[in-house]
Amino acid sequence: MISIAILGYGTVGSGVVEVLEKNRDSINKKAGEDILIKYILDLKDFPGTPIENIITHNFDVILNDEDVKVIAEVMGGVEPAYTFVKKALEKGKSVVTSNKELVAKHGPELLSIAKEKNINFLFEASVGGGIPIIRPLNQSLTADEIYEITGILNGTTNYILTKMSKEGLAFDTVLKEAQEKGYAEKNPEADVEGYDACRKIAILASLAFGMNVDYENIHTEGITKITARDMEYAKVLNRDIKLIANCIKEDNKVHAMVAPVMIDSTHPLAHVNDVYNAIFIKGNVIGEVMFYGRGAGKLPTASAVVADIIDAIKHKGCNIMSFWSTKSMKFISMDQVKAKFFVVVKTDFMPAAKDSAEKIFGEIEYIILDNQEDELAFTTSEITEKAFAEKINLLNEETSIVSVQSSIRLG
Amino acid sequence: MISIAILGYGTVGSGVVEVLEKNRDSINKKAGEDILIKYILDLKDFPGTPIENIITHNFDVILNDEDVKVIAEVMGGVEPAYTFVKKALEKGKSVVTSNKELVAKHGPELLSIAKEKNINFLFEASVGGGIPIIRPLNQSLTADEIYEITGILNGTTNYILTKMSKEGLAFDTVLKEAQEKGYAEKNPEADVEGYDACRKIAILASLAFGMNVDYENIHTEGITKITARDMEYAKVLNRDIKLIANCIKEDNKVHAMVAPVMIDSTHPLAHVNDVYNAIFIKGNVIGEVMFYGRGAGKLPTASAVVADIIDAIKHKGCNIMSFWSTKSMKFISMDQVKAKFFVVVKTDFMPAAKDSAEKIFGEIEYIILDNQEDELAFTTSEITEKAFAEKINLLNEETSIVSVQSSIRLG
Repeated sequence: MISIAILGYGTVGSGVVEVLEKNRDSINKKAGEDILIKYILDLKDFPGTPIENIITHNFDVILNDEDVKVIAEVMGGVEPAYTFVKKALEKGKSVVTSNKELVAKHGPELLSIAKEKNINFLFEASVGGGIPIIRPLNQSLTADEIYEITGILNGTTNYILTKMSKEGLAFDTVLKEAQEKGYAEKNPEADVEGYDACRKIAILASLAFGMNVDYENIHTEGITKITARDMEYAKVLNRDIKLIANCIKEDNKVHAMVAPVMIDSTHPLAHVNDVYNAIFIKGNVIGEVMFYGRGAGKLPTASAVVADIIDAIKHKGCNIMSFWSTKSMKFISMDQVKAKFFVVVKTDFMPAAKDSAEKIFGEIEYIILDNQEDELAFTTSEITEKAFAEKINLLNEETSIVSVQSSIRLG
Repeated sequence: MISIAILGYGTVGSGVVEVLEKNRDSINKKAGEDILIKYILDLKDFPGTPIENIITHNFDVILNDEDVKVIAEVMGGVEPAYTFVKKALEKGKSVVTSNKELVAKHGPELLSIAKEKNINFLFEASVGGGIPIIRPLNQSLTADEIYEITGILNGTTNYILTKMSKEGLAFDTVLKEAQEKGYAEKNPEADVEGYDACRKIAILASLAFGMNVDYENIHTEGITKITARDMEYAKVLNRDIKLIANCIKEDNKVHAMVAPVMIDSTHPLAHVNDVYNAIFIKGNVIGEVMFYGRGAGKLPTASAVVADIIDAIKHKGCNIMSFWSTKSMKFISMDQVKAKFFVVVKTDFMPAAKDSAEKIFGEIEYIILDNQEDELAFTTSEITEKAFAEKINLLNEETSIVSVQSSIRLG
């Protein structure tokens, strides 16, 4: 018998309790011991529910109970999660968490405490919901030097983009519907502005490269400016628009970005739709691998938390996570990163607009769509981000150009 | 410093040496020790190559050297691999292998010896080449009751089918080209008849269900009868033909099959092309997850072997693989398994053929294609395998039917 505690009885926390109940026999068999949930920390009381007797409001009760060997932190947010987790690890209790903010901000410190104490700090659920990605990165792709990670890491935005693409709807319309269905938060900022994906790619990249990839250095754009019209153009180009998080290592520096990208339909990520997530990894030996599944949701996320609980129990006295140094990876300046771009401009005089576009961007390819009288759409050849920004400014100054409507990277 | 030995210096064996050399620093760091290849067992001598001094022809030299803690068996075939691996495990040496025949035939016995000796028998490379799938099944999806595994597990046949689908070529033509390119063996039987995929699905299912899924009980069909015409019909149905290996658990019994299947283009496996493999898993908590990558090839396979070597070194004195019982899973009779079918028949009198098809199969949907004068194609509703076989026999007896050209399951 081994006692555990759960910090937070929200969506994920109640999912963890449900999964431990639902698959109890097979889980206990795999853990090698019967798992007892001794405490659940929450502000509320949940009277009349099966958990009412194990609810506590006082973290110190858990911290000071020597029976408790593993703690699942599923509260979210940096504080008080960070304080609790740090104290637990320092007391020699293994911690598993689904909290990407905590891992992105304090991962290396918490990993190093766990290593020192010869216990485990595990966070499979912090990226990709139930998709096994942290453990494969840490234990399976170890023969490789990984040099690229590209992912669809946010289910809410992927649901919105899929719906916009398939049904020709506007962003605001789909967001509202997603909020009604509970797929998007009332305040959707963390998802639609890319902040959530940014923290997740920082965690994956840090783990893959063994050094801290600071999420605050990652260029992050959301999907709020994507239009139904952009989706139409994407189709003509045999592409789809996805919120892509990526990190590429070159000569011991990285460039990392979260942004909407028009990806080619032959790319495996192009077929990752709805609330699904996928992580596409390139290594110098293995070539390309991809991991796909539900990136969020109560039970998939709880599945990953419980798998970590089992692993923590199986590895008592045996630290299994790779070290991820507090030293920061150097970033290649965003200015120097290269891409091809898709551009749409409004014009009041098409021939002059074409002349301007060709003069400024050189070799471009026009994209033909219906009802295009006042609209010029084209793709550029590969140029640096800096050059692109400068050229867009120049284009905006041309008298024939009313406004730049869209600019999206191709991938 | 830890000494290892490699059994077999063929494609995979030389890949293992290459990977250990190429990424030496990061591999040693992850293993926590410097890895020394002390012996390579092979029948040949390789004079004048960097490995000539570590070649041995005598397995007992390796077996009796106490320095050797981990052995990589990459010879293939059941014997002498089985004898060597068993002796090594009994001597307390961890073994990693890429050998699917060995694992499918003797997996449970070898795992139980490893468990008893508190060492490890690891076989990530035996299924899906470099794709991490064994370790995720064993360590990541532990909170779930897995009830379905469906995979594209053979790169050669997937290459052939992709080429047939994209270029409208005949099976024989593409096979010949694949043989010239080295993608298919001179004797392609194990691949094109589905035997290779059969062993792999048996390994995955055994591991997922914790009991032996005997590969000899798995209904196995190859792709040799698939025609370019079938591919045309598949396109009309918005489907693609893939060699699918699957195993489904229902009420503690399984049904398992390797066969060409027309899968819908919305299924994630439909976009797995060329030599790529993918494994699609359903669990009662996680929902659906998929793992994708190169299913064969020197370096991807070596990547998995080396990752296992690292894991074996990190887990000295700590057995990490789940037990997979020697007890056999019961199979649901193939007769009772249900599917929808795609059927093509040649006829010399179309109206009568349609009458016959409708009389025998009930509700069917015709598929319209060019140049169809003497050819009737339709899909059936869901029926059992037994009923389908009976109905096909009845159809064959109808005077208007010249012959049944194709019958392929829909998935």
